[in-house]
Amino acid sequence: MGEHTISFAGNGAVVVPTGTLLTEAAVRAGVQIAQPCGGQGRCGRCAVQVHGGEDAVGGVRRRSTLRLSAADVAAGYALACQAVVEGDAQVIVPVQETLERTLTTDRTAAEVAVPAGYDPQRDQSMQRICLTLPPPNLDDQCDDWSRLQTAVRTQTGIENLQISLPLLRQIGSVLRVGEWRVTAVLNTDYGLRNTATLLALLPGHIPDDTPLLGLAVDIGTTTVSVWLVDLISGAVLAQAAEYNRQIRCGEDVISRVMYASKNNGQAELRQLVLQSINTLIERVVQKAGGKWQVASGEPGSRQVMKATIVGNSIMMHMLLGIPAESIRLSPFVTAVNHPPVFTAQEIGLDMHPEATVICLPGVASYVGADITAGVLSSGLDDALPVSLFMDIGTNGEIVLGCRDWLVTCACSAGPAFEGAGVQDGMRATRGAIEEVWIDGRTAEPTWRVIGNDKPRGLCGSGLISLLAEMFLTGVIDKGGHLNQHLATNRIRQGENGPEYVVAWADETWHGRDITMTHVDIDNLIRAKAAVYAGMAVLAESVGVPLDTVEQVLIGGSFGKYINVEKGIQIGLLPDKPWENFKFLGNTAVLGAYYALLSQTAQQRISDIAARMTYIELSADNSFYEAFTSALFLPHTELNRFPSVVQEMEIERLGE
Amino acid sequence: MGEHTISFAGNGAVVVPTGTLLTEAAVRAGVQIAQPCGGQGRCGRCAVQVHGGEDAVGGVRRRSTLRLSAADVAAGYALACQAVVEGDAQVIVPVQETLERTLTTDRTAAEVAVPAGYDPQRDQSMQRICLTLPPPNLDDQCDDWSRLQTAVRTQTGIENLQISLPLLRQIGSVLRVGEWRVTAVLNTDYGLRNTATLLALLPGHIPDDTPLLGLAVDIGTTTVSVWLVDLISGAVLAQAAEYNRQIRCGEDVISRVMYASKNNGQAELRQLVLQSINTLIERVVQKAGGKWQVASGEPGSRQVMKATIVGNSIMMHMLLGIPAESIRLSPFVTAVNHPPVFTAQEIGLDMHPEATVICLPGVASYVGADITAGVLSSGLDDALPVSLFMDIGTNGEIVLGCRDWLVTCACSAGPAFEGAGVQDGMRATRGAIEEVWIDGRTAEPTWRVIGNDKPRGLCGSGLISLLAEMFLTGVIDKGGHLNQHLATNRIRQGENGPEYVVAWADETWHGRDITMTHVDIDNLIRAKAAVYAGMAVLAESVGVPLDTVEQVLIGGSFGKYINVEKGIQIGLLPDKPWENFKFLGNTAVLGAYYALLSQTAQQRISDIAARMTYIELSADNSFYEAFTSALFLPHTELNRFPSVVQEMEIERLGE
Repeated sequence: MGEHTISFAGNGAVVVPTGTLLTEAAVRAGVQIAQPCGGQGRCGRCAVQVHGGEDAVGGVRRRSTLRLSAADVAAGYALACQAVVEGDAQVIVPVQETLERTLTTDRTAAEVAVPAGYDPQRDQSMQRICLTLPPPNLDDQCDDWSRLQTAVRTQTGIENLQISLPLLRQIGSVLRVGEWRVTAVLNTDYGLRNTATLLALLPGHIPDDTPLLGLAVDIGTTTVSVWLVDLISGAVLAQAAEYNRQIRCGEDVISRVMYASKNNGQAELRQLVLQSINTLIERVVQKAGGKWQVASGEPGSRQVMKATIVGNSIMMHMLLGIPAESIRLSPFVTAVNHPPVFTAQEIGLDMHPEATVICLPGVASYVGADITAGVLSSGLDDALPVSLFMDIGTNGEIVLGCRDWLVTCACSAGPAFEGAGVQDGMRATRGAIEEVWIDGRTAEPTWRVIGNDKPRGLCGSGLISLLAEMFLTGVIDKGGHLNQHLATNRIRQGENGPEYVVAWADETWHGRDITMTHVDIDNLIRAKAAVYAGMAVLAESVGVPLDTVEQVLIGGSFGKYINVEKGIQIGLLPDKPWENFKFLGNTAVLGAYYALLSQTAQQRISDIAARMTYIELSADNSFYEAFTSALFLPHTELNRFPSVVQEMEIERLGE
Repeated sequence: MGEHTISFAGNGAVVVPTGTLLTEAAVRAGVQIAQPCGGQGRCGRCAVQVHGGEDAVGGVRRRSTLRLSAADVAAGYALACQAVVEGDAQVIVPVQETLERTLTTDRTAAEVAVPAGYDPQRDQSMQRICLTLPPPNLDDQCDDWSRLQTAVRTQTGIENLQISLPLLRQIGSVLRVGEWRVTAVLNTDYGLRNTATLLALLPGHIPDDTPLLGLAVDIGTTTVSVWLVDLISGAVLAQAAEYNRQIRCGEDVISRVMYASKNNGQAELRQLVLQSINTLIERVVQKAGGKWQVASGEPGSRQVMKATIVGNSIMMHMLLGIPAESIRLSPFVTAVNHPPVFTAQEIGLDMHPEATVICLPGVASYVGADITAGVLSSGLDDALPVSLFMDIGTNGEIVLGCRDWLVTCACSAGPAFEGAGVQDGMRATRGAIEEVWIDGRTAEPTWRVIGNDKPRGLCGSGLISLLAEMFLTGVIDKGGHLNQHLATNRIRQGENGPEYVVAWADETWHGRDITMTHVDIDNLIRAKAAVYAGMAVLAESVGVPLDTVEQVLIGGSFGKYINVEKGIQIGLLPDKPWENFKFLGNTAVLGAYYALLSQTAQQRISDIAARMTYIELSADNSFYEAFTSALFLPHTELNRFPSVVQEMEIERLGE
């Protein structure tokens, strides 16, 4: 036992006791090391180079070298989450994958249309009213708070007005500074039409055309999106998105729940998501400019009076600081599906401290508010024909239904389609191969790279495209096995079994081959099988054949770039004509935006959550059967994919 | 200009710039100097002895020497609140009046009877219920919060259950630790019978006979009283009282409002009253013993779930941290008469953080919740005969009425009857002369002293008694002027005009004469005149002659010791037979106790506040007339005091 000095090149040093993990030492030194798998030693992203004294990797003991190449191991690389300090060491942290700011959800405001006929007086819970009160005198000694309540009641009919203690402390001064002319911001309670909460009181009458600020927020596992909205005009004033800062604690929700259960993990995850949102709030407020910044030297974010928030159930729990451990373990129960309304201060958001924060309701552990909001904005809950809504992000949630009924399930597809759990997988940023074509005769690929750069890996659409091409050209068979008899050096035996080389080292950004391994193929097939089986089980549960579904509504950023044809070819999407698919982008934040504006929309999301029948796949034998049947390309039952059969025949003719 | 060292004998030293007040220097040095008048230089209680270099009073400049005798001035005494630092100085702070702990409100619990027929299930807003929930499984994945809501709804019919974020974070763990058997503490909302707030959730089923703790609190200007109550049995478990720690910032409410407006005065006053209450909470919880301390290593005060608080309007504002400045200035308006319900955490009370704190409603700036609660506990609002309720404490509030109507006013009597503003006045503690008799022939007094000690001064009942005796024996005339022709050395010319010597220096505790000066007599007559004029104006306003009042209900600790006969003789009390007076003690805390137990009582206090017609005396010409008429002993109109006329005749015959 003893104390050891760990220095991080260019980032200072810390003294830690024997047995400390390098990741913990890094936290103490304030050095960021990504741990997408949550510190399980599975993803290999936390690899660092270690020197202790004269020796490579001296000073630490490696518990595991999974995902490190033999060369890496020799060069002194270690997984920081699996490296135990046993002596002094110098650590070099490689440059991490850059989180690019040009996220797809950061669209220009002009693209979002204010809902037709939006009437803030009728639809909006948040109201701003100008009041003129009679000043007190010796014949009218009514107290300030009663005087204000009377003025509000006279003007609005609201009988029951509530107020916080901090605001109660201010009203006397505001009334007198404003010389009994004031502007009140009220949140009216939808449930009780004559009840409201006074959130702010400002001296003087604020001009009607001054925006009243609100936020629509989507907390994705990967990306957090924030829209700044004028609650009076309904206009989106600014949008911004960035990666969820929790990513460094785990790429998928399960990794994060596991991270939360360690040490102070839960508090850390809460702070990280709060930081993500608060940074975005600051950014949208700055983007929108200052014309609405009434009075006071307060930061602009203090003027934001309302937010609606969506996200999957685990993101919502983490935002609220509620333990999510029970979600991970059977019987997979959340602490809360429909959180009460809290204030920004209670949650920790940088808005007006008394601002109303509405966390929209989810349905179950793996069907959260992002889905209920998505169903609203996709219009599925009001559709006449039977429709399918899918949101394939880090998780895969599916809803089948129409205006009369809704069933939903979550398939643990894993984050393969987001590039995680795949050796050369990556997110859809610069350097990602997003589409692949394979020559059926030579098995030689060509590809398109985001940013026209040298390739660094494959993103989700690239993986789907590659898998489809490999299947159609016979590089793999319907079971996903690589055809080792093809006359090509692209298929070879790698460290972890057979693999297909997509790009040679001299073509790539990092100078290493980009490959698709047998394990990757298996992961992708299992992922697509889980999604398809989920759809099949839903359809079966209501006795509606999948091919009678008339429209497929696809939400999430994933959907925006997927090639439908390729998705059908691997059996991920149902075999319907192109025109039956609609790609809706971030349906979750759009639903939050609608709920932010309108009580009717907010109520409709609650109704959706209440109406939706959740089918727990892990409790359903038919899911296992459907999953097994879907573990082939495109499927065991080829009659489910007539267009693919046709395509296969064309390919065969071409050979 | 410069820096000077001020040393406080035995209490260290501070360096302060030229121009600093000695009181400010004392605060910086952590030395307590009482400022009952709020630092106005009027009361003389902050007198300290100063030496600078070799000179008496060197180092400071005295702005005023009011209330200092010529001998004091010569001896280097200065009023700390009026002494400006101009050089180095040594300061001796005289021993301050000791705040004795044996306050009259600290009665034994046995004296308070639980209201007849108290039924906690029907009357009490706070409910504790044992719940057994079905555990979740794969066929029942309902979230924890909905599961809990359903269990509560099934058992109680409560449809709308609310919860705070901190508690929401805990429920998952509590449900599992308790293996789905839990005890819930709910505050039901009187207004909405199917709405409640979940305040606490404990694992397992707590035995029915475990007390559920609540507090009744009266914040007097002088004394704070706290009762610890079992909300289930209704029993008072413990009581405690202590002087309001704000006293050192001013003896009366006006001095305190003035103190609040300086520097950080408001925050300091809030902290002082919170300290007073929190100390008492700790004391009553300790007194009550530990048998109700369920589980956990938390302090016992954390188990207290509810409080009802009364006090005059300024005390309530100061407790809540609400500026009270507008109360002091015309048109004398409070910020709030009926504060909303807040949590203990919001207010800063050491109870369960989510505990419900109900500040009962007042009527006006100078008729607070102590009066509405007092009216309830005195039974005035339900009385058939026309009755008078008076609470003569630091302020004087009067209510006239019966079950059909109520009128009220506040007379700015000042704290003379509490011994303040009178040269040798003091509170009713050890050493106070509480009753005086004067021999009509010799003008020699005899007196009774609290604690049978040597006299230190005169308390309120002593002052009233002395004034009555002086009047009846002809020491003063009906105008309050000392009869300088009497053959007695007791009447002499003092520093501030004529005075009567009550006790000679060799008889007193401090070796100084105790006197009643002409100024004191004037102050007392003005105080009694204000009270009587208030009663007269109230009676006139409703057309009910004062002598038709059938009972006089006297609340407050003052009332407990007053001699009714003497009170009538000086014209403070209406001339009614002894049996028409009822002395009720602390009616305010008793009213708070009733409201703590019963929603009906709480509602009745709100009704009283709403029903009471407040008459603002400063806006009323008839008050000035009534006041002027009452500036005589017992009154200009002698027919108002027939018994006193009779007494005067007897005295005259005796001469």
